Amino acid sequence: MTSLPKDSLTKKTGDRAGEFSIIRKIFAPLAKDAPGAFGLTDDAASLSPRSGHDLVLTKDTLVEGVHFLSSDPADLVARKVLRVNLSDLAAKGATPIGYLLSCAWPAETTIDFIKSFASGLAADQSEFGLTLLGGDTVRTPGPLTLSVTAIGEVPTGQMLRRSGAQTGDDLYVTGTIGDAFLGLEILQDRLSMDSGEMRTALVAGYQVPSPRVSLGPALRGIAHGSIDVSDGLLADARHLAEASGVKVDLDLKAVPLSTAARASGADLLRLASGGDDYEILFTASADDAETIAELGLKHGVAVHRIGRVQAGEGLSVFDERGNPVDVTIYGYEH
Amino acid sequence: MTSLPKDSLTKKTGDRAGEFSIIRKIFAPLAKDAPGAFGLTDDAASLSPRSGHDLVLTKDTLVEGVHFLSSDPADLVARKVLRVNLSDLAAKGATPIGYLLSCAWPAETTIDFIKSFASGLAADQSEFGLTLLGGDTVRTPGPLTLSVTAIGEVPTGQMLRRSGAQTGDDLYVTGTIGDAFLGLEILQDRLSMDSGEMRTALVAGYQVPSPRVSLGPALRGIAHGSIDVSDGLLADARHLAEASGVKVDLDLKAVPLSTAARASGADLLRLASGGDDYEILFTASADDAETIAELGLKHGVAVHRIGRVQAGEGLSVFDERGNPVDVTIYGYEH
Repeated sequence: MTSLPKDSLTKKTGDRAGEFSIIRKIFAPLAKDAPGAFGLTDDAASLSPRSGHDLVLTKDTLVEGVHFLSSDPADLVARKVLRVNLSDLAAKGATPIGYLLSCAWPAETTIDFIKSFASGLAADQSEFGLTLLGGDTVRTPGPLTLSVTAIGEVPTGQMLRRSGAQTGDDLYVTGTIGDAFLGLEILQDRLSMDSGEMRTALVAGYQVPSPRVSLGPALRGIAHGSIDVSDGLLADARHLAEASGVKVDLDLKAVPLSTAARASGADLLRLASGGDDYEILFTASADDAETIAELGLKHGVAVHRIGRVQAGEGLSVFDERGNPVDVTIYGYEH
Repeated sequence: MTSLPKDSLTKKTGDRAGEFSIIRKIFAPLAKDAPGAFGLTDDAASLSPRSGHDLVLTKDTLVEGVHFLSSDPADLVARKVLRVNLSDLAAKGATPIGYLLSCAWPAETTIDFIKSFASGLAADQSEFGLTLLGGDTVRTPGPLTLSVTAIGEVPTGQMLRRSGAQTGDDLYVTGTIGDAFLGLEILQDRLSMDSGEMRTALVAGYQVPSPRVSLGPALRGIAHGSIDVSDGLLADARHLAEASGVKVDLDLKAVPLSTAARASGADLLRLASGGDDYEILFTASADDAETIAELGLKHGVAVHRIGRVQAGEGLSVFDERGNPVDVTIYGYEH
């Protein structure tokens, strides 16, 4: 990456040329399609949005043992750190362009681990159409710590905002909620599932989220308020309400669950506060219900209406009988 | 910051509103001058370069115990992580605009530490004219880990490159070399200095580098090849030679030292491979010698000619008698 030469894996000698060479061999190919990345041989990258566009920037950090498990495969860890950032871009209606990556490797990190990590990045670059632009690698005496700055593009002024929800809007969420939470429970031996297939699906939900990269930009001009669901559906619904100065009513029974999540028997309220979903929670006019359904079909993403926006403030959650639910935990504690 | 709500300092409860509020109170004021930062209340920031300009992006990470000491004051740590990134921008001829910041705080981090940290950011934002745009905070079981993505601006296509050095160019370096290395030696009790004033100057060189933010952009159109000196003068001179496909001859006796560095009696070769200098190493035509001297005066930065660019490859270092020096260590080992 841009500053890779600054630090590297093993510093037995002051001459780190050998390591630069290894890391350049592994990472530079990921930057080959971005002229402004200069093959990761410079101090910085150069970038401009297309005419009539704004750049959208987001930066999320994952720490081993906090946001992913030490036992998670390297390529999946790479995809996760990219995808949690892509999810932020998607919720803002932005099309991804590129990213900068900072890796703090523990001393015991092997070249094989880094190769596998880079293969995960390569797979997702190809899937989501973005390119490595720069970054750095350093040593750490602590856990593997990965920070991505993802950069996307929107037509000027059209970034979707948390603050856009309007009274009378419907509330929608993409995909399903709670799979990642249950996947983590499985990996931590706090939940067992008889079905191997379901187990795999839930674990995949935790390890490799599915950012709504293609649907997100399609929601520009339709979604009024929009937020990435990462803290937990309830926590993020509350953030949306707060940023927009409105009251959000959420019907718990309408929250979409996967077959596996339903089979787990887990409490719905717990799933709705589980976090790590990386779905888009957005509001839109009731007039656009049909358009939204069509967009969901077109982009292969389920979109469910789970509530509505009212005048007032805060989040109200309702059970299947329409009675208010007393919520004490809104978000996930890493 | 943009994603601050995702994680925060103390997670005794699932409701992190209290912490969000504290962190927003501390960090949001740092973002008030950037409309596209949305007061750190959204998932991402929005940014465009001025018409006719490119953005320049760089990302450097600092780890406690590796790149700074646990005993370093919080405000100085903040300024260092900002400044090492600003130095990259300066060496690329870019004027800083803003930055994204990721903080991985250890559990024992206090609010006072964070307040002091933010005060360091505020001081440097004011000094260097840039604004916080977003980022995130997370918990870590490891050491304090800070990652900054700094964003600057250059007229389209005018980013200074490592690869621009031309045969016949002179080689220049800004400021003085080796102070940071000696400052670290002092802090680690490996070097003692009789003069309290000199001791303070050297320690300041380590803790608070002076990125050449005003001189850097003035070198556009004059500097041919340019690199930030961070690994060590010799290591970075070699990177410059390599990126440009030229041979760099460096006169050790011409390497500028501070009064304190001279008084330390440290070996010149050691200082030239010490690293953490955050100066600009650049090449330019001999015809521009006078202009460069004037720019140095204008921007209050000493600029010294320390060598020349020849056809060939690699770095050759010469002693005071013009004899080649056998270099075994080019850069600093963190």
